[in-house]
Amino acid sequence: MGSSFGTALRVSVFGQSHSAAIGCVVEGLPSGLAVDQDALARFMARRAPGGASWSTPRKEADAVRIVSGLNPVGQTCGAPLACLIENTNTRSGDYDELRRIPRPGHADLTAQAKWHGAQDVAGGGHFSGRLTAPLCAAGGIALQVLASHGVRVAAHLDEVAGIEDLHLCARKGNADQLTAQMDILADRPFPTICPDAEERMVAAIEEARAEGDSVGGVIECVATGLPAGLGEPLFDGIESAIARIAFGVPAVKGLEFGAGFAAARLRGSQNNDPYGLDEAGNVVPLKNDAGGNLGGISTGAPVVFRMAVKPTPSIAREQRSVDLVAGTEATLAVRGRHDPCIAPRAVPVAEAVMALALLDCWLMSGTL
Amino acid sequence: MGSSFGTALRVSVFGQSHSAAIGCVVEGLPSGLAVDQDALARFMARRAPGGASWSTPRKEADAVRIVSGLNPVGQTCGAPLACLIENTNTRSGDYDELRRIPRPGHADLTAQAKWHGAQDVAGGGHFSGRLTAPLCAAGGIALQVLASHGVRVAAHLDEVAGIEDLHLCARKGNADQLTAQMDILADRPFPTICPDAEERMVAAIEEARAEGDSVGGVIECVATGLPAGLGEPLFDGIESAIARIAFGVPAVKGLEFGAGFAAARLRGSQNNDPYGLDEAGNVVPLKNDAGGNLGGISTGAPVVFRMAVKPTPSIAREQRSVDLVAGTEATLAVRGRHDPCIAPRAVPVAEAVMALALLDCWLMSGTL
Amino acid sequence: MGSSFGTALRVSVFGQSHSAAIGCVVEGLPSGLAVDQDALARFMARRAPGGASWSTPRKEADAVRIVSGLNPVGQTCGAPLACLIENTNTRSGDYDELRRIPRPGHADLTAQAKWHGAQDVAGGGHFSGRLTAPLCAAGGIALQVLASHGVRVAAHLDEVAGIEDLHLCARKGNADQLTAQMDILADRPFPTICPDAEERMVAAIEEARAEGDSVGGVIECVATGLPAGLGEPLFDGIESAIARIAFGVPAVKGLEFGAGFAAARLRGSQNNDPYGLDEAGNVVPLKNDAGGNLGGISTGAPVVFRMAVKPTPSIAREQRSVDLVAGTEATLAVRGRHDPCIAPRAVPVAEAVMALALLDCWLMSGTL
Amino acid sequence: MGSSFGTALRVSVFGQSHSAAIGCVVEGLPSGLAVDQDALARFMARRAPGGASWSTPRKEADAVRIVSGLNPVGQTCGAPLACLIENTNTRSGDYDELRRIPRPGHADLTAQAKWHGAQDVAGGGHFSGRLTAPLCAAGGIALQVLASHGVRVAAHLDEVAGIEDLHLCARKGNADQLTAQMDILADRPFPTICPDAEERMVAAIEEARAEGDSVGGVIECVATGLPAGLGEPLFDGIESAIARIAFGVPAVKGLEFGAGFAAARLRGSQNNDPYGLDEAGNVVPLKNDAGGNLGGISTGAPVVFRMAVKPTPSIAREQRSVDLVAGTEATLAVRGRHDPCIAPRAVPVAEAVMALALLDCWLMSGTL
Repeated sequence: MGSSFGTALRVSVFGQSHSAAIGCVVEGLPSGLAVDQDALARFMARRAPGGASWSTPRKEADAVRIVSGLNPVGQTCGAPLACLIENTNTRSGDYDELRRIPRPGHADLTAQAKWHGAQDVAGGGHFSGRLTAPLCAAGGIALQVLASHGVRVAAHLDEVAGIEDLHLCARKGNADQLTAQMDILADRPFPTICPDAEERMVAAIEEARAEGDSVGGVIECVATGLPAGLGEPLFDGIESAIARIAFGVPAVKGLEFGAGFAAARLRGSQNNDPYGLDEAGNVVPLKNDAGGNLGGISTGAPVVFRMAVKPTPSIAREQRSVDLVAGTEATLAVRGRHDPCIAPRAVPVAEAVMALALLDCWLMSGTL
Repeated sequence: MGSSFGTALRVSVFGQSHSAAIGCVVEGLPSGLAVDQDALARFMARRAPGGASWSTPRKEADAVRIVSGLNPVGQTCGAPLACLIENTNTRSGDYDELRRIPRPGHADLTAQAKWHGAQDVAGGGHFSGRLTAPLCAAGGIALQVLASHGVRVAAHLDEVAGIEDLHLCARKGNADQLTAQMDILADRPFPTICPDAEERMVAAIEEARAEGDSVGGVIECVATGLPAGLGEPLFDGIESAIARIAFGVPAVKGLEFGAGFAAARLRGSQNNDPYGLDEAGNVVPLKNDAGGNLGGISTGAPVVFRMAVKPTPSIAREQRSVDLVAGTEATLAVRGRHDPCIAPRAVPVAEAVMALALLDCWLMSGTL
Repeated sequence: MGSSFGTALRVSVFGQSHSAAIGCVVEGLPSGLAVDQDALARFMARRAPGGASWSTPRKEADAVRIVSGLNPVGQTCGAPLACLIENTNTRSGDYDELRRIPRPGHADLTAQAKWHGAQDVAGGGHFSGRLTAPLCAAGGIALQVLASHGVRVAAHLDEVAGIEDLHLCARKGNADQLTAQMDILADRPFPTICPDAEERMVAAIEEARAEGDSVGGVIECVATGLPAGLGEPLFDGIESAIARIAFGVPAVKGLEFGAGFAAARLRGSQNNDPYGLDEAGNVVPLKNDAGGNLGGISTGAPVVFRMAVKPTPSIAREQRSVDLVAGTEATLAVRGRHDPCIAPRAVPVAEAVMALALLDCWLMSGTL
Repeated sequence: MGSSFGTALRVSVFGQSHSAAIGCVVEGLPSGLAVDQDALARFMARRAPGGASWSTPRKEADAVRIVSGLNPVGQTCGAPLACLIENTNTRSGDYDELRRIPRPGHADLTAQAKWHGAQDVAGGGHFSGRLTAPLCAAGGIALQVLASHGVRVAAHLDEVAGIEDLHLCARKGNADQLTAQMDILADRPFPTICPDAEERMVAAIEEARAEGDSVGGVIECVATGLPAGLGEPLFDGIESAIARIAFGVPAVKGLEFGAGFAAARLRGSQNNDPYGLDEAGNVVPLKNDAGGNLGGISTGAPVVFRMAVKPTPSIAREQRSVDLVAGTEATLAVRGRHDPCIAPRAVPVAEAVMALALLDCWLMSGTL
């Protein structure tokens, strides 16, 4: 019914941009995991608005309060884990205009069509990017579960405003090089592999902001260490599981795995990943254009996807819209504190998406 | 659990490439629809292997037998509709080699990792593209339901081997021109808008076949006539619903909606679709880079997606693999009758994906 | 995955007896309902421990805080509605003994088998009857939705310790008499129709308490005003929907609809409900031994069920158990403040179960 | 959506009484099970109408054709297992009268309310008891999976027309005696433990038939050998899982576990099952009034339920109904070949319900 997903790991996300609180309930977590709440807070901080030049000046602590699901020593206890994030920094503002003049690129008008005026319009309501905070809370815990089984997840800004970072070498079958890239990303405040890319991306974002406009980007995400054989056939494969969640993230408009759209221009002889034997005698794909899965089932190679994030729809520039009350055309300039590029803050969201989908697949397989 | 999907419209797909039969069960269809079995057969024929130069020489009738779900006058009766397609043209062949030497680009090895040797390897088993036949049976009926409510769906080969067709003008807000394109596609035996594109694509496919190789493509699909307000928030929006099914189709590696990946290079002021009033005074987006939905909820504009189809992994050329029994590296050339490009036959599959996802969203909304 | 249920109305319950908070998330509520929080608080109060002689001396306010899902004017806004109940009156006590010596009749030992020591044992953890508080929060809102569509729900103690109340005349087809009974119940502090039954039941409960023991009971619940045609065939019929939730309520061990077990001793000519015409010319069953549904689909007659509640397992009397650490037999007397009969407080829980199941069925039908 | 159920084991049942075929699709079966089709046929034969004096004279072979889900050597291959049963012995008869004058006790009128005339009325359509045949096909395979892991399931007619069989001693904690009872039942053509009970039950059934009437019964079902710790908390516990399926079986009106309704009249000190140590030093409940589960989680003791089956609604006696076309009251006598008591043929159905619910719980736990 929309705001929940998953089969063996079931996540239910709730809240509106300006409701008293937002949060999530996570069912199906393995019991006995000692949740590292400091690590969770650090993960949340990567998504939180922070006041950097490329971000919104709005500050939100996004402190996650785990109200159930842990035992007295802080381990997952088998019961559903519920996270609450109080909305401390909301604005009481006047949202009548939002209800009257829908913002282009937002769900204002579609929410009206669906809920006939009862929708909470403030800050985009349930469709706000703010809902990625509880998604990250759930994902941050999933990442800890995966890490305890040797799976590592990382993402970076592959592209912003047409400016490219170095690509992850997840499709090349070079494990050491990929590990090195993931190590670099773990220490970078801005999520690019290459510092030069950061510089040029930030400049592009600031330029857009100065012009009352916004820019988009592409995020590349990888997971290593997953065993072969995870995922269910057809519609609950690894790609389907990731896709359903990824397209639930506001602003995501495209998704590709491995070679992705580029595979459509390759020959089969180029795109197929041949098999070989590694030093230990295990069968492995010699490269990874499949993005770590075949038929939706993991191969053991890194799972890798790229997702396209559209430019922030909230822009200061004047846009054409309609006055729903007057029934006339109207213009609109979105006031307030908005990210001129949402992509940097969406990088941990991509990691959360990856972690939640993979953990669900692993739990479905009954082998975790 | 993989082979079924949907919430209010629930589809369960069964079968293996060479099992006695394949088929599907569809729960939740509105009652009272007079199923046009001739139209369904024509739809199935578009997916069926036909012996054209760009297709496999293998012929399969793919006759759909509806064994339950209709009343005596041929209407949907509310009970689950079950379709059966007997596998008449299977080969008894020797599949031990398949089990021994996994084919690159296929799910042979991942199925082994998942099912530990019990999997049905013949023809790819449950991972075979043949499973798109029951998906099309379900989708063909969904298309009839949608058509009875004014929704029209069409798809075409946007690209094969790098050769492009004319694009659908679904993102331009020009309804008449789009209708004209859909009319053209309804009469084309090869699914391109432009006959010249057909000629060049077929040549590229034949060239690949001659070289023992294969090519991929991109399919663009559109649906018009959907009311605004369909789709559930977040993870059951229109994009998530389509994505989950689309990535369940073998060989699909990428998916984008509206401007898709290109949106990542646009400014917000370019990508946002401004609102205006149509001649009847209705609020409408003036263009459609959102691909017919915002926040996952339909805007009333055409829903449009592009999906990338990888080159057929079965190729005659020699490839590197591994002999799982001997534990040695090995080479493999895939024999048999295979499509050098699967994309043309995947065009009706894209329409089925679109129809099943949209009908599920519509039924979930409780307004059909 | 256990703690959530429902198809079109999806309820996720979280919390442990002594976790920081307990609560629920409800997805799929119709938008635009003005939630009456005072009425909800009164409904919650019926379940809350209150200090009556037949109840536990422990007092809990069970104040429901709705943290999301409402718009600024207090209507359901379409987004998931999340309820939070802080656990204010927990005891910090020593639960090591609970972990060491499992209490008969509780889930202590089965939770250990399932979660291998990580379970939260305090107060029964996630298996505590306390979890019926968030179920009642969800159910209380469902009751308001149903009431706004003319559906009325009531329950009473049909039996406690073998002492019977008057039965609801829901199976007789006498609507006026049933309405009168429901009116009486609306004003009764102790949930029996007959004051004499209260007196005798309370005496039996106090007698059991005085003897360090407990008693059980049977709750009868009815819903009137439901239209015909709700419920899905076979496994999502009205009976299945109610049953799944009812058996999720701690201490429920039996459930029957309409004539129930007594039907097994009737002839078909006695058990069948013949059809007739009411004064307005509508087709109606002339009696209601079917309990308001046939084939799981509502007939329009009152839906009626009886559910058996076992005696409270927590008793002061000494019981045989086992010391899991020492590996020896042991004895145990459950200390603390416990209801000597849980059935009176389970009466609103039965109404919540009825409301949630019926609202889900109604929403699934797409006709609400 | 009604005709499917299960979480990790997903069963979809299709067909109408007189459709071309009926069947089921089972997803999630463990791979590698060698299906014993002869044993399955014997199990199906126990449900099939056979022409005994207590049954319908109508004969149906109910041959199960497994069209997918097996590999070439007859093992489950991981893909969905689909079963087809052709409807060979249908009557072409005139069902207009059924549509005009609904039969009391059947779903004729509720199906009309739900599907507005499009429903398949012949033989009760999708609501026919015939749909328990595919349920038994799925259940028969689940029984084989469970048997391969040491779980044994048996059921008997605990009561018909008020005549009681010996009760299973599943609640007494006497394993040897229970095994002896299960051995006896395995060899009995009529499902009572006691031959004398058979004689008296058959006489009562024949007497009802002679009078144009029918009788009901109660079935008791037990499963032994299940490990402790299976079932999910709250709404996916063992009781909820069984209940949802059981109430989907036509004619079931009541269900109880362990002491069931009788528990409501016991004291806590009587109803609680104390723990002790068995000869091997394992902790075991010393009796089993809980019916093998606490908090919905298996204790390791036998799971035991009783379900009430109403008298067959199809009776030769004249009944009051309504002519929907004329809008007048009418009378009706159900012609045709009907079981005067459906309970004997429902005994294997109870076993199928038990097996499917337990296997789903086991698979959900990820420990099978």
